[in-house]
Amino acid sequence: TRIESDNPTSVLRLPSESELLNYQTKQLTGRDDPPKMASSTVSFIIIIITTTVLLPSLSSQLSDLFPSNNPPPFLGKHSHPIKQPNHHQQYRYETRYFSQPLDHFSFLDLPRFRQRYLINTEHWVGPSRSGPIFLYCGNEGDIEWFAVNTGFVWDIAPRFGAMILFPEHRYYGDSMPFGSKEEAYRNATTLSYLTAEQALADFAVLITDLKKNLSAEGCPVVLFGGSYGGMLAAWMRLKYPHIAVGALASSAPILQFEDIVPPETFYNIVSNSFKRESSSCFDTIKNSWNALRSEGQKEDGLKQLSKTFHLCRELTSVQGLSDWLDSAYSYLAMVNYPYPSNFLMPLPGHPIREVCKKIDGSPAGSSILERIFNGVSVYYNYTGEVDCFQLDDDPHGMDGWNWQACTEMVMPMSSDQNTSMFPAYDWDYSAFREGCQRDFQVTPRPRWITTEFGGHDIEHVLKSFGSNIIFSNGLLDPWSGGSVLKNISETIIALITKEGAHHIDLRASSTEDPDWLVEQRATEIKLIQGWIYNYSKKMKATFEI
Amino acid sequence: TRIESDNPTSVLRLPSESELLNYQTKQLTGRDDPPKMASSTVSFIIIIITTTVLLPSLSSQLSDLFPSNNPPPFLGKHSHPIKQPNHHQQYRYETRYFSQPLDHFSFLDLPRFRQRYLINTEHWVGPSRSGPIFLYCGNEGDIEWFAVNTGFVWDIAPRFGAMILFPEHRYYGDSMPFGSKEEAYRNATTLSYLTAEQALADFAVLITDLKKNLSAEGCPVVLFGGSYGGMLAAWMRLKYPHIAVGALASSAPILQFEDIVPPETFYNIVSNSFKRESSSCFDTIKNSWNALRSEGQKEDGLKQLSKTFHLCRELTSVQGLSDWLDSAYSYLAMVNYPYPSNFLMPLPGHPIREVCKKIDGSPAGSSILERIFNGVSVYYNYTGEVDCFQLDDDPHGMDGWNWQACTEMVMPMSSDQNTSMFPAYDWDYSAFREGCQRDFQVTPRPRWITTEFGGHDIEHVLKSFGSNIIFSNGLLDPWSGGSVLKNISETIIALITKEGAHHIDLRASSTEDPDWLVEQRATEIKLIQGWIYNYSKKMKATFEI
Repeated sequence: TRIESDNPTSVLRLPSESELLNYQTKQLTGRDDPPKMASSTVSFIIIIITTTVLLPSLSSQLSDLFPSNNPPPFLGKHSHPIKQPNHHQQYRYETRYFSQPLDHFSFLDLPRFRQRYLINTEHWVGPSRSGPIFLYCGNEGDIEWFAVNTGFVWDIAPRFGAMILFPEHRYYGDSMPFGSKEEAYRNATTLSYLTAEQALADFAVLITDLKKNLSAEGCPVVLFGGSYGGMLAAWMRLKYPHIAVGALASSAPILQFEDIVPPETFYNIVSNSFKRESSSCFDTIKNSWNALRSEGQKEDGLKQLSKTFHLCRELTSVQGLSDWLDSAYSYLAMVNYPYPSNFLMPLPGHPIREVCKKIDGSPAGSSILERIFNGVSVYYNYTGEVDCFQLDDDPHGMDGWNWQACTEMVMPMSSDQNTSMFPAYDWDYSAFREGCQRDFQVTPRPRWITTEFGGHDIEHVLKSFGSNIIFSNGLLDPWSGGSVLKNISETIIALITKEGAHHIDLRASSTEDPDWLVEQRATEIKLIQGWIYNYSKKMKATFEI
Repeated sequence: TRIESDNPTSVLRLPSESELLNYQTKQLTGRDDPPKMASSTVSFIIIIITTTVLLPSLSSQLSDLFPSNNPPPFLGKHSHPIKQPNHHQQYRYETRYFSQPLDHFSFLDLPRFRQRYLINTEHWVGPSRSGPIFLYCGNEGDIEWFAVNTGFVWDIAPRFGAMILFPEHRYYGDSMPFGSKEEAYRNATTLSYLTAEQALADFAVLITDLKKNLSAEGCPVVLFGGSYGGMLAAWMRLKYPHIAVGALASSAPILQFEDIVPPETFYNIVSNSFKRESSSCFDTIKNSWNALRSEGQKEDGLKQLSKTFHLCRELTSVQGLSDWLDSAYSYLAMVNYPYPSNFLMPLPGHPIREVCKKIDGSPAGSSILERIFNGVSVYYNYTGEVDCFQLDDDPHGMDGWNWQACTEMVMPMSSDQNTSMFPAYDWDYSAFREGCQRDFQVTPRPRWITTEFGGHDIEHVLKSFGSNIIFSNGLLDPWSGGSVLKNISETIIALITKEGAHHIDLRASSTEDPDWLVEQRATEIKLIQGWIYNYSKKMKATFEI
């Protein structure tokens, strides 16, 4: 296991990413020079990422101690600082760069930037046979990480004779405007072009140019995306139907805006994922917040908490710990896969079941907080290699997703007193806005996404409009509540799996896949075949799958 | 007849527009102070507009003398410097302003601007009965001018119980960023937000806000637009299906980009409009360019030409005269209505027939150029009030449509040696680009519009995508060749009239309307009723037309 990329143009060789890596290393070792990248270090580093970079930036001063006012714990927040290794190079691709306008929607004289994209053409049957182009809509992270975690596209491309494209989302990974992450993230002005609309336009311009250069104008493009990438895929199909013939939008919470779904949805689903495993587990977690608060208020309470939770540094407030736990539960619900996985963290199959086993099965006499620690250790330390845990100590760092959450991607989140195992919290937009103004000097536009992309009453709006979108969702995934769960028309359809978690269908097939997952993917393949078949019929092309 | 607006917030009271008016007046009178606005002055001023502001800015140094390399003579170029009077106040509206972000697609900290919109609610049956909202997509000119020239919307609103909205296009009329036209048009930086995408987003934000304020979220919006406004209406329905239930896009040349239609299309249609009236008329015009060139090359030739064409000032080159003639023919084809009209100029019915009568029927022994002068006088001087004609002497002035043509709206135009009556010309993108760089310090993006909105293979692309768009076109209109002339699906349909000209269907009904026009409008009304009916059925509302 090595973390260096196999590709010479890899992001790891660029200073900005190296700096990040050094920063993490320093946090781990207390030293400035990076340690040798022995294989045992890797899991360490992965653990550190989840504890240093992903934690909330807007949680302070919003209320008492506990109310969780994190920006939505979107998946991709895990994904940018470091890549998982491309094991055994199972996915081969070339890395290329494309010059993009920084602003597609104005004619300001701005510097262009290099958008990275990964490309594989070895299975592509080419323009003469209208070989399809499978395009994964890069989301909020390093595109190589998404590439290795989207095995479905690699698995099915050969049978379609498809080209594979993984364009990176601007302002992430190696696709930095102004030459470096440092410059791109300097302030609100340099960050101002980090929007979903610009990212979609990037994809549109890239694919149009690429097709022209390859004389592949007649080749159908199929979009894929998970999480925010799934939102981009769905929106891309809606906004650029001339660019792509269809989209598989997996776990895409396009309705998690304004008042379309109740703000309690996300935390209710997380909570239910625990409750279904064990109601005592649910109760223990629900009660733990008060225990945490009481402990924190004691003399030496923070010291004691730091010991109980094996923290490397002593807590200065309970909030950091509370957020750390909140994150663990939310991410556990997202990656509650039925088999061992290593998506965000190395985890056993049915990880929530395992967490609850630890919580419920802690030795008699264990305190609530000891049980909680045993539980979340399944998430943060499944491999048992961590000696102490490092909480985020740079909560206001410039993070791409936090910027997006503070501008367009305003997703109201509440926690219901009765149905949620989290501390009760009512969404407070004013407080959220103030946090954004403080952290980024930017004022959110909370109604813009629904103005630009719709969402309200989507069922009726799209009934006779749009086509060829699959919204796939696993109901265990807390983001499923903000996605499309009903068929809208004959060609805009919802695929739901009861036992699925966050875009599990996009992962590589495995011998451990349950039947429902095998069936789900087979359905998706059939639908995609249908899109391509209808396209080629229309084009009177002779391409055959 | 007065040219002051009836509305106290009228644009005419703002300095920037006054300056323009003064400029025109000065050109007419040679004096700085405006003359009294006696009724006889009005037609003078209208004539001056067409000769001072609309003429091409990119025609010089592009080739020999004649090749017409004007930016496309879009209708709206006539519309911005001055309004036609709202005769007898036949259309009543309130003028309001809405604060818009200058850039919807970035989070730059830019000054907002005031978008003007006209509103009439007297027939609106309100939210409780889901009263429709008729929205005209303001195009490249003063919105009051479009309001008084779009009688169709006013005519039919009462029977629908509809609200009427005329939002103005940013950077036109009274909707100026940076506080004034002078500031907005200062340079490429201030102009950089003058794009179609931003204008569509303006409409989307405005209507969303307005509906919310009126609790009218359940009221269906129907879009109307002519010419560039028709393009906006069609694109708006495609990009914002959640905002509007349908669009009547009249004379909307959304395919006049890149290589979608042959670049000769426009001038061929203009030429055919003359040929169908009289082949000798066509021949005279076709031969006139050489006559013009020969005359111009003679000693005192320019002096003689200036006399023949009754120009106020002596020509310095033949180009200006050539462009002036080109414009007349193109506009004549666009407004070749079957009844007297006063849209661009006061004109008789079938004006091309009248022009050809003059050309063919000039006294025996008239020279080619004398015949041409007699012909175009029908266009430029139908009322007979003009003593001498003033050509444009500020060809590089900052004009909104020229900016748009030099950035996104790049419409290739050629003139075919055999089929066109204009001087032969092959579209030369490099020369065009250089002209834009020289005049506006901006480089066009000639492929952006089709990337953003599509156009290639639109028939197949939209067959199972989109709904509720009417593309209406009169085949006499030279823009019809760049529009959608075939039904795409059951709900995206083309309405074609053989004898129609530029968005004649949007004009007020009149006793002189030919049967085909009456029928066309009846069909449009039925289709719109269908959209609203289906919408209300979906909404299970009880609204009845």
